[in-house]
Amino acid sequence: MIIVLKPHATEAEIAQVIKKIESFGLTVHLSKGTERTIIGAIGDERLLQEGPLEAFPFVEKVLPVLKPYKLASREFKPEGTVVNVDGLQVGGQRVVVMAGPCAVEGRESLLETARCVKAAGGHILRGGAYKPRTSPYAFQGLGEEGLKLLAEAKLETGLPIVTELMDPREATAVYEYADLIQIGARNMQNFKLLKEVGCRRKPILLKRGMSSTVKELLLAAEYIMSEGNYEVILCERGIRTFEDATRNTLDLSVVPLIKRLSHLPIIVDPSHGTGKRDLVSPMALAAVAAGADGIMVEVHPRPEEALSDGPQALLPIMFTSLMSDLSRLAQAVGRTL
Amino acid sequence: MIIVLKPHATEAEIAQVIKKIESFGLTVHLSKGTERTIIGAIGDERLLQEGPLEAFPFVEKVLPVLKPYKLASREFKPEGTVVNVDGLQVGGQRVVVMAGPCAVEGRESLLETARCVKAAGGHILRGGAYKPRTSPYAFQGLGEEGLKLLAEAKLETGLPIVTELMDPREATAVYEYADLIQIGARNMQNFKLLKEVGCRRKPILLKRGMSSTVKELLLAAEYIMSEGNYEVILCERGIRTFEDATRNTLDLSVVPLIKRLSHLPIIVDPSHGTGKRDLVSPMALAAVAAGADGIMVEVHPRPEEALSDGPQALLPIMFTSLMSDLSRLAQAVGRTL
Amino acid sequence: MIIVLKPHATEAEIAQVIKKIESFGLTVHLSKGTERTIIGAIGDERLLQEGPLEAFPFVEKVLPVLKPYKLASREFKPEGTVVNVDGLQVGGQRVVVMAGPCAVEGRESLLETARCVKAAGGHILRGGAYKPRTSPYAFQGLGEEGLKLLAEAKLETGLPIVTELMDPREATAVYEYADLIQIGARNMQNFKLLKEVGCRRKPILLKRGMSSTVKELLLAAEYIMSEGNYEVILCERGIRTFEDATRNTLDLSVVPLIKRLSHLPIIVDPSHGTGKRDLVSPMALAAVAAGADGIMVEVHPRPEEALSDGPQALLPIMFTSLMSDLSRLAQAVGRTL
Amino acid sequence: MIIVLKPHATEAEIAQVIKKIESFGLTVHLSKGTERTIIGAIGDERLLQEGPLEAFPFVEKVLPVLKPYKLASREFKPEGTVVNVDGLQVGGQRVVVMAGPCAVEGRESLLETARCVKAAGGHILRGGAYKPRTSPYAFQGLGEEGLKLLAEAKLETGLPIVTELMDPREATAVYEYADLIQIGARNMQNFKLLKEVGCRRKPILLKRGMSSTVKELLLAAEYIMSEGNYEVILCERGIRTFEDATRNTLDLSVVPLIKRLSHLPIIVDPSHGTGKRDLVSPMALAAVAAGADGIMVEVHPRPEEALSDGPQALLPIMFTSLMSDLSRLAQAVGRTL
Repeated sequence: MIIVLKPHATEAEIAQVIKKIESFGLTVHLSKGTERTIIGAIGDERLLQEGPLEAFPFVEKVLPVLKPYKLASREFKPEGTVVNVDGLQVGGQRVVVMAGPCAVEGRESLLETARCVKAAGGHILRGGAYKPRTSPYAFQGLGEEGLKLLAEAKLETGLPIVTELMDPREATAVYEYADLIQIGARNMQNFKLLKEVGCRRKPILLKRGMSSTVKELLLAAEYIMSEGNYEVILCERGIRTFEDATRNTLDLSVVPLIKRLSHLPIIVDPSHGTGKRDLVSPMALAAVAAGADGIMVEVHPRPEEALSDGPQALLPIMFTSLMSDLSRLAQAVGRTL
Repeated sequence: MIIVLKPHATEAEIAQVIKKIESFGLTVHLSKGTERTIIGAIGDERLLQEGPLEAFPFVEKVLPVLKPYKLASREFKPEGTVVNVDGLQVGGQRVVVMAGPCAVEGRESLLETARCVKAAGGHILRGGAYKPRTSPYAFQGLGEEGLKLLAEAKLETGLPIVTELMDPREATAVYEYADLIQIGARNMQNFKLLKEVGCRRKPILLKRGMSSTVKELLLAAEYIMSEGNYEVILCERGIRTFEDATRNTLDLSVVPLIKRLSHLPIIVDPSHGTGKRDLVSPMALAAVAAGADGIMVEVHPRPEEALSDGPQALLPIMFTSLMSDLSRLAQAVGRTL
Repeated sequence: MIIVLKPHATEAEIAQVIKKIESFGLTVHLSKGTERTIIGAIGDERLLQEGPLEAFPFVEKVLPVLKPYKLASREFKPEGTVVNVDGLQVGGQRVVVMAGPCAVEGRESLLETARCVKAAGGHILRGGAYKPRTSPYAFQGLGEEGLKLLAEAKLETGLPIVTELMDPREATAVYEYADLIQIGARNMQNFKLLKEVGCRRKPILLKRGMSSTVKELLLAAEYIMSEGNYEVILCERGIRTFEDATRNTLDLSVVPLIKRLSHLPIIVDPSHGTGKRDLVSPMALAAVAAGADGIMVEVHPRPEEALSDGPQALLPIMFTSLMSDLSRLAQAVGRTL
Repeated sequence: MIIVLKPHATEAEIAQVIKKIESFGLTVHLSKGTERTIIGAIGDERLLQEGPLEAFPFVEKVLPVLKPYKLASREFKPEGTVVNVDGLQVGGQRVVVMAGPCAVEGRESLLETARCVKAAGGHILRGGAYKPRTSPYAFQGLGEEGLKLLAEAKLETGLPIVTELMDPREATAVYEYADLIQIGARNMQNFKLLKEVGCRRKPILLKRGMSSTVKELLLAAEYIMSEGNYEVILCERGIRTFEDATRNTLDLSVVPLIKRLSHLPIIVDPSHGTGKRDLVSPMALAAVAAGADGIMVEVHPRPEEALSDGPQALLPIMFTSLMSDLSRLAQAVGRTL
């Protein structure tokens, strides 16, 4: 950690900073420049989090040198992590496709969609039983009934299930039925929920918050991992920007960036990322070209009847066509579908 | 709700949209322009949320006419709401000042700060017992022990307590000690938590999410109110933008805007809003000039020892000086402190 | 255009709006709903730009129905435009690669880079002679001397030249040497400059402003086209968001979106879009997978000596490798390099 | 400047960085930590801009220690600058009010507005003769005819004139009539225009670009000042964020921040900052409370006939009322109107 002092810091002030740093067991390296005095703190700078040096009025700024996350970093674990979802490997050679309706709405439409996902070659069935909705008057999901329908769809198709957990009090139910536990974008910094899933033994799909930096996403993963659960898959799903022509701004650059910073697998959700059906397939292809380990897309047989996110759902025929395009593209970038 | 069809929509497609709208009990108003056909849906458009017309491929866009929230809107309740916090009125003539440390860190420092807040004329004591921290390795708060210290500070100073609730499982403890329950920015869309505090009987301080629109903030309030709890105070605390010279971008324009859209009181937190001690007092004054019903600021006797947010904490002497400036300013805009 | 009135608008106020609309030669369509009166203006709503209906205090909001641009829209011209750059077609089957140094820095390094671009199969040589730099103390470009070096590089390699025009007073010089005139991101709304290049007869590469919406980008193209120059290539180069792990946020979703909204070709600049050498190639591949008509990348033989943007420049060997990857990918999406 | 090397940087690589730094005449300070080697460059780090150390593949990051601007910094000139606009002081004790129509639209309405501004106590008349408009089909301003009308209004009322310069080729005309030359938000990084006004001898009103950081705003001022013109007034006018309930997000925190970083006066434009008439007055008051040296607001006698920005124009009666509120508020913060 590097501490830059204000122009006219006195010797006594310099001594105060040094004393503080040394009290945390770190070593000090002093450098007096022409315009500023700079103090380097050598050792584990994470310890200094509890001694906020920038709170001294004579400190101009504090520049961290190390990444604030450890378990999630590639420096800590150079080889990529492969997460096992009910026998399916995420993070390996294969590009994994998770597909299904936004919300589980009923038995018939779910089974119809599940069969379509299976037939087209999809790997994991998605579907929300508990739905975080902006308005209290919107459909809130079928709850446990929805979980049971997902289980039935799995029984018929063999597809593992990914579904969202919103509340630690519902963890027992969700863990009974799901193979991959989704933490939604709005809960990426629901730290109590992160700790809850960190203590349990199923893989997590952690979606990036809509205004979260990559650093915060990796720190959210670190919350889960620091409780003992290393099976975390990251998911880019679009961030919030000034551009309103799309629902969110899909930030694909984080795919190769996270591959460098972390060993965790990363997938992309172009459905939420764009909010527009016509843009989903091109952006799914782009995601894989950028190096994503998989994609997550919404499919609905009759989007105009969807209780949630109909405008961004692919029709089954579009999904089938996407799978064939993806297969060609995966091959061009040295992967398989 | 207004539905704009794509340029070459056929009669059959127009009929499909009309049928859908009528199936929800709304009336249709058709208008064929030179370049587009437009369909108006007359009646309670909130019903149409479950029939997503924009999911039809021949619909170009859907334009809502009404606000999506009701209980929180000034149209629904024209006179301003005054929230009672343990006998103190928020939303009335008086500008309310909530102050204290970011986190409760220990008995001595809390009591010292509480006395200072009281002596300078502050109205409510703030202090976090459960702390949402970006890093799992940062101080997470004293938990119930912190709540008890807050109770002791109240006993001595008479100041009501505001503190954050992060997890529905901790509601019983927090409700035992707090007078005003804070929902933090990261939990503004933790809908299960909103419902939990909506069912309980204490006033809520709802902080705006760092990437939430005003509409989403009011819908979050609507979540609480639709469960029966109308005692909601809103809080602007800065949004996330590209500007990194401040911790967040304090969006003061929402103060007069929300006063027009809603009857709920609104306060401003310039400590989190700016992240820099030197900017807190000027922005507190600006908030009151813009029409805020109060402010929330962090005060710490020794910021360089604070376990959280030291750089943005006011020193006691700065807080005292702010109170005197605020008093003069409040008077200039026709209010009292 | 649809005008939504405030709840208690009177008959006299409704009449005032109608009179205003009719004064512009448009027809009115009135619809009284349960909570709002809505007025539709039928005809060319662009005319109403000079009669700002939302300025009436009793108007709640005005919702445009049509796109504000015309010449740039695909509705106006359904088939895609192919722009001819000194014999090379942009917007056709071929994916076009523009490459070269950020700035022209000297004869040797420019020629060395140009040869490398040519050898690897690049199509157009880029290089700035006039450089828009954030700091007045940074290298500002070689000016006309730089243009002459570009001409020399073209003579040797046969590669057409793209370079930036910053000032209408320098147009004569730039037009003498360049084949494709670049309007940089900072000048996307320099309307005088747009009009200047709209009146001249060479193709334009129009880069998206760093906080410009897609609508504004297409309106900037409309500025050029409305002066008579239809040869416009759009370029996505990243927008400004809260994320600081990359220099900008490359908004690839606009590629398929613009393909739907407009007939103009669009290319992507992953060098400025990411600011990091390691991310350039993956994002170049992603851009082509998303449907881009080409890419623009920075190449420098010794980035650590570059006078501008060294950290995002590809080494020649990386560029050669990218070309081979791009070739495979282009084929997988049905195009050629 | 501090250079952090990647974990396994070799001695040869360290030597390469040191050699580079020394070649620019700076001294090196080496510090080997437990996880990273850090190199400090002591001396004028601005020199290193042309030797991009982060372009070395073994450099992890480069952390500047000094501000990149000099003439604009308060460190360089501790006392505040007072700019003289035709005899009126901006940056002193008095809060300065600039008011008038967005665009000059005609003789009658301009004179009517000018008289109202004068009568209410406004200090400077604003009005655009050359208008930067998003659409090429919108009213583009009266040009030189508009300048002459402004001169006539000055002759009658005695109010100095501020108007925008968009194109260096129009500088001669604008300088003939204006007392204060406005550089609009879209041109904040039109560096050629900045240099043009830097060489001329009238004060400049420099508006912050809608996605510009404070650092970039001060560097834009530095462009002007480095050409010899020190008479620069900064203007905050709202930045672009995800929030669409207001036209822009007025970033008032930069007022006290810039007061600390720079000696230049700063005013606020709440008309463009909010885009909504009802929010202009509260935010004008907030601006002064935050420490602004003045405000700039739009006033129009008949906003519904305005050719530009009608919805954000104050009616004359509202402006008169604002002036009286401002007067009371200015006094409360120790200033005069």
